[in-house]
Amino acid sequence: MDTTFDALLLRMKELRDLGGLIGLASWDQETYLPPKAAEARAQQLTTLQGLQHERLVDPRLGEWLAWTQDRKDLTDDQLAMARVLIQERDRAVKVPRTLVHALAEAQSRGVHAWREARKANRFDLFRPALERLLTLRREQADAYGHAGERYDALLEGFEPGMRVARLGPVLSSLRDTLIGWVGRLQASPRQGPDVLAGRQFDPEGRKRLCQRLLEDMGFDLEAGRLDQSVHPFSSGLHPMDVRLTTGLEEPGLGCLFSTLHEGGHGLYEQGFHPVLHRTPLANAPSMGLHESQSRLWENLVGRGRPFWTHYFPVLREAFPDTLADVDLEGFLASVNRVTPSLIRVDADEVTYNLHIVLRYELELLLIRDELPVADLPEAWNERMRRFLGVVPPDDRQGVLQDIHWAWGEFGYFPTYALGNLYAASLYATARRALPQLERGLARGELRPLRDWLRTHVHAEGYRLPAEERVRVVTGEGLTDDDFLGYLRSKFGTLYDVKL
Amino acid sequence: MDTTFDALLLRMKELRDLGGLIGLASWDQETYLPPKAAEARAQQLTTLQGLQHERLVDPRLGEWLAWTQDRKDLTDDQLAMARVLIQERDRAVKVPRTLVHALAEAQSRGVHAWREARKANRFDLFRPALERLLTLRREQADAYGHAGERYDALLEGFEPGMRVARLGPVLSSLRDTLIGWVGRLQASPRQGPDVLAGRQFDPEGRKRLCQRLLEDMGFDLEAGRLDQSVHPFSSGLHPMDVRLTTGLEEPGLGCLFSTLHEGGHGLYEQGFHPVLHRTPLANAPSMGLHESQSRLWENLVGRGRPFWTHYFPVLREAFPDTLADVDLEGFLASVNRVTPSLIRVDADEVTYNLHIVLRYELELLLIRDELPVADLPEAWNERMRRFLGVVPPDDRQGVLQDIHWAWGEFGYFPTYALGNLYAASLYATARRALPQLERGLARGELRPLRDWLRTHVHAEGYRLPAEERVRVVTGEGLTDDDFLGYLRSKFGTLYDVKL
Repeated sequence: MDTTFDALLLRMKELRDLGGLIGLASWDQETYLPPKAAEARAQQLTTLQGLQHERLVDPRLGEWLAWTQDRKDLTDDQLAMARVLIQERDRAVKVPRTLVHALAEAQSRGVHAWREARKANRFDLFRPALERLLTLRREQADAYGHAGERYDALLEGFEPGMRVARLGPVLSSLRDTLIGWVGRLQASPRQGPDVLAGRQFDPEGRKRLCQRLLEDMGFDLEAGRLDQSVHPFSSGLHPMDVRLTTGLEEPGLGCLFSTLHEGGHGLYEQGFHPVLHRTPLANAPSMGLHESQSRLWENLVGRGRPFWTHYFPVLREAFPDTLADVDLEGFLASVNRVTPSLIRVDADEVTYNLHIVLRYELELLLIRDELPVADLPEAWNERMRRFLGVVPPDDRQGVLQDIHWAWGEFGYFPTYALGNLYAASLYATARRALPQLERGLARGELRPLRDWLRTHVHAEGYRLPAEERVRVVTGEGLTDDDFLGYLRSKFGTLYDVKL
Repeated sequence: MDTTFDALLLRMKELRDLGGLIGLASWDQETYLPPKAAEARAQQLTTLQGLQHERLVDPRLGEWLAWTQDRKDLTDDQLAMARVLIQERDRAVKVPRTLVHALAEAQSRGVHAWREARKANRFDLFRPALERLLTLRREQADAYGHAGERYDALLEGFEPGMRVARLGPVLSSLRDTLIGWVGRLQASPRQGPDVLAGRQFDPEGRKRLCQRLLEDMGFDLEAGRLDQSVHPFSSGLHPMDVRLTTGLEEPGLGCLFSTLHEGGHGLYEQGFHPVLHRTPLANAPSMGLHESQSRLWENLVGRGRPFWTHYFPVLREAFPDTLADVDLEGFLASVNRVTPSLIRVDADEVTYNLHIVLRYELELLLIRDELPVADLPEAWNERMRRFLGVVPPDDRQGVLQDIHWAWGEFGYFPTYALGNLYAASLYATARRALPQLERGLARGELRPLRDWLRTHVHAEGYRLPAEERVRVVTGEGLTDDDFLGYLRSKFGTLYDVKL
């Protein structure tokens, strides 16, 4: 038995190492790669991904994994490792090589067509590429297999275990509640101008503050880094090598929130228990649960009164001139403004999920082939009006705004909403478990929260699927109760409105 | 025929991509890797090198390569690609896996023991590890095969085609000439104090100057980078992605010379003709020829009067206070001081090769098993006295100074001397081919030299072995004539001595 499991473990480590190297090559691509090396890097990444795929579908790995299935002498962790890798391998094996290549090509064309369409502000330039991507993704869903709902097979790639039958009702109920709330918040006389709008903050000072926030959160800067890139992202090359980026080109304070966001992801990646390192369990069980950590730090902590009670004076000290005429109340009102807007990435905590539900509903219809691609812009605009009361003046600010569909990614968007819901449930549980939590935050003590999350979420890795993990920690699975409760309390107070 | 060569070409590209990724992971290790990620990175590199080895020794690759041998329809470049890869693969196949592992372990122990020995200033702590490395390298040399001189088989790994029978007489003659010259230069009344000693130059200003030198040389900073690391190095991840480093921790001007040095390597890596990219021909044919490019820019250009005629005013402008009391003559005398010294990396152009010949003679004796390791420190000191007239007060400043033997690298040192000799021959040829060359250098025009080197050396890649390439360009193979002529003219004038 030893030698077979040893062989399996060795392969697991090799696969993780390749994943880490793909992470390095991708991180470098966004940070330090010389501009003329773009094509060379794309080739290197293709080679590495090809090797990784080859090692994953290797029949010997299939045999070693099959062998684990009737062993009574394996530990729970060993069985869980095998289970996770079996799932991953099964999906990889099911997709024919011709389809893999067709998809890669369609994705590349998709991104190109999307850029052209955006430039010309003409959705019809993107339409053929999107149709092709949808056809191939349906084929892929059928290759994976499903019980009648193709979207489930795609969702599984981002949120294992989640199904339309479970997700749909939660998102519909959330949508209906939020549509009502947005209207009431808009009508509040507390809506004022954004006092931070247009202010310019020195990049060096912002960078120092971002570093400090990460340190205070307990992100280990000796086992990770913060660099700059156009779009912020985080990448776990290894739990001892977690790389975050933030963007400093925009002159505002957005980088602070994006650093808290990426820092949340980063703490997850650094927090896997060392016994799980270089195994398939040194992973979050889903994109949604990963996103819960970033949203928790960015929003539930990072847009909250306790947090800024401590950090607003720090911020004022860093930018005494720029913030001379701003006080804590004005600042909190500014970073918590609720405004229906056209662009998802700029949306506030209340309207954000409506942007997500819109995308979820549309991509479900597209994958089901119940909405012709030609009708997509109109369907988008109709929902924007219904959900948020605003209508994009053009497709660039509407259906063409996100890159996800150009990549052919369907099933990804809902994980953002899941992240928000899980974040609220976990934060509510943390507050009950740590009665001093927010008093501590108001003194700048972020570590107790990190430690609690590490123990209950991060360290556990992928031992359980996401919803089961949440249920173990909070006592409940997926629910919008905690999220709505959080919004009600926070925005009800800020806007003096009964929600 | 097409499909077999296509398969071969695909594998060649894959191998180059893996090489580039190993380059990236190694570069990152020395520049941006978080300190706690050292072990993770070592594991990732081991995995990647293991995969690269596996793809290289793959029997199918052997068949494709064998197939090329009786094809009349392949181009010269296709045949050369196959020839280079056959050589590389044959060597890889010949070494048993057990020996590969034993060597890796012995190297790791070697470096560890060497560090301990240096710390304690006790050679005996390093001796057992060095003995083990020598035993294994002899085994490896026998596995590679040789005609009675094991050292040849090791030299082949760094300087393909070079043999002790050809190299030895050149180095002995060079040694005898230089020993005499060093004495005469030492006796010159022109020997003065070093006017640059102890001066501190602002790091930002030095960094800007390093960048400017690279630009002026024609190093494409859009297809490469300059970063900082403890020890300067260069790494060609791809001809479009060449990464150089320099060290700014020391307060002096050493970084300028190391940037010219690494820039010389970098120009070589950027200069391979595009038709050779991602093939085994996008390579220098030897370490010695690669080193010729770094030494040419560092010394023949970068310590010369024409170069500083243009750049000394630039330097003074960058550091007006620090250099207020230094003139061009004092500066040139300082960067060209000839002083017998204990440490190779600090040696001047005249004494440097004596440090190399010393190492070459000793490692040849060690590999031949004609010098017991226990007697090595004494043999070192005896040669130091004979060659340079100085004796190390301890082993740290003597036999323990270099890391190469701790890595188990025997056959590497002579490539430094070959680099100096080839550099002088190429530079002499360039001066004849470009009569305006040094007048241009004195106006800061470095591009004509780069272009000439690119055409005659860089673009050709590994189409020919190193010495053949040099013969095609200069009309002569390996010789010390040009090098000695260069020293005679330069130092004879500077020191007013007849050499």
